[in-house]
Amino acid sequence: MSISGFFPIWDKLNPAERETLESAAQPRFVKKGTLVYNGSSDCIGLFVIRSGQLRAYILSDEGREVTIYRLFERDICLFSASCMMSSIQFEIAIEAEKDTELWVIPSAVYKSLMEHSAVIANYTNEIMASRFSEVMWLIEQIMWKSFDKRLAAFLLEESVLEESDALKITHEKIANHMGTAREVVTRMLNYFQSEDMIVLTRGEIEIKDRKRLEKLSQ
Amino acid sequence: MSISGFFPIWDKLNPAERETLESAAQPRFVKKGTLVYNGSSDCIGLFVIRSGQLRAYILSDEGREVTIYRLFERDICLFSASCMMSSIQFEIAIEAEKDTELWVIPSAVYKSLMEHSAVIANYTNEIMASRFSEVMWLIEQIMWKSFDKRLAAFLLEESVLEESDALKITHEKIANHMGTAREVVTRMLNYFQSEDMIVLTRGEIEIKDRKRLEKLSQ
Repeated sequence: MSISGFFPIWDKLNPAERETLESAAQPRFVKKGTLVYNGSSDCIGLFVIRSGQLRAYILSDEGREVTIYRLFERDICLFSASCMMSSIQFEIAIEAEKDTELWVIPSAVYKSLMEHSAVIANYTNEIMASRFSEVMWLIEQIMWKSFDKRLAAFLLEESVLEESDALKITHEKIANHMGTAREVVTRMLNYFQSEDMIVLTRGEIEIKDRKRLEKLSQ
Repeated sequence: MSISGFFPIWDKLNPAERETLESAAQPRFVKKGTLVYNGSSDCIGLFVIRSGQLRAYILSDEGREVTIYRLFERDICLFSASCMMSSIQFEIAIEAEKDTELWVIPSAVYKSLMEHSAVIANYTNEIMASRFSEVMWLIEQIMWKSFDKRLAAFLLEESVLEESDALKITHEKIANHMGTAREVVTRMLNYFQSEDMIVLTRGEIEIKDRKRLEKLSQ
């Protein structure tokens, strides 16, 4: 399979640019749970997601995490190629949340294409703007939405991603997504259970009253 | 005065691009306190700051604010031209914190330049990446730094910007910068005063023990 179908701007590229992208793109398969990119390590390259699901997050000195955004089929991740741009002054880590197929386009190749092509540079701009928008949304959530609302929204989102009402996720993992402590998550989940919105069993959270969770999350 | 000195990429532009930028740039002077840009209003254009100081912030439905970044001499603001890119899906407001001279480059003009020039598109990318880095820094602060540290850092930063130990700023304004309630700010300032780090007088906060504030902020 070619990456051509994963670049909406493909039709606007010249034959040389297409050839460069196609021959540089390295297919990779990563198992669920793999740390695909670690901010402090090398600048691997652009990720183009063919299938699966990745999670981009930041890490505090004390090891706490916050999920910044997720990447799904057809998404492109720039920040795994952060050395492309000197102004990217932050580090993220990326892990596979599901078995994932992706292409890696080496940073130097993409940087050179971008420097010579306004089409590619502008497309890159749009990708960055869309991640920027996700991060601005996250700031609004953190600043202005109380934790119960955020947690309700998170459970509903997970349920869509997993296509199930029974979520196999630990309290620790939820805490890592939301940038809080496990105890805080457990306390709120216990409250949700006492209100009959969910049922907690070993290693699983089952959504019982979707409507109330939705109302709470809004 | 020409905007040429405010674009580091000027030497890489062709004569037509320079001419377009120079003739499109509209000089503007805004008094301290002016709301220069309001997310919900039109998409005015790129701001190029000649002198002064602007503050970009977001606003909650309830009217609470958080400062996202500040703009100083030579900075360029893209998000006042957010209609340039369809992927910019958030709104900011911008106000003048000091009397400010700036140029406005209409969004349509800049968009057209960017679409045809890889140099301009890549420069725009760098600007966005540097704002993105500021926003990521802010998330880390909000998530992982306690409020006393953030407030100490804020007072020190203000003192640098105002070149004074005596800060003429209300508790309400500080709350708007930091995305919290006025009471929270007042309580922490009272604590700082009780620890002899600052002195509070009507409409003024005087820094008394810079070293301890610096230590606290780290």
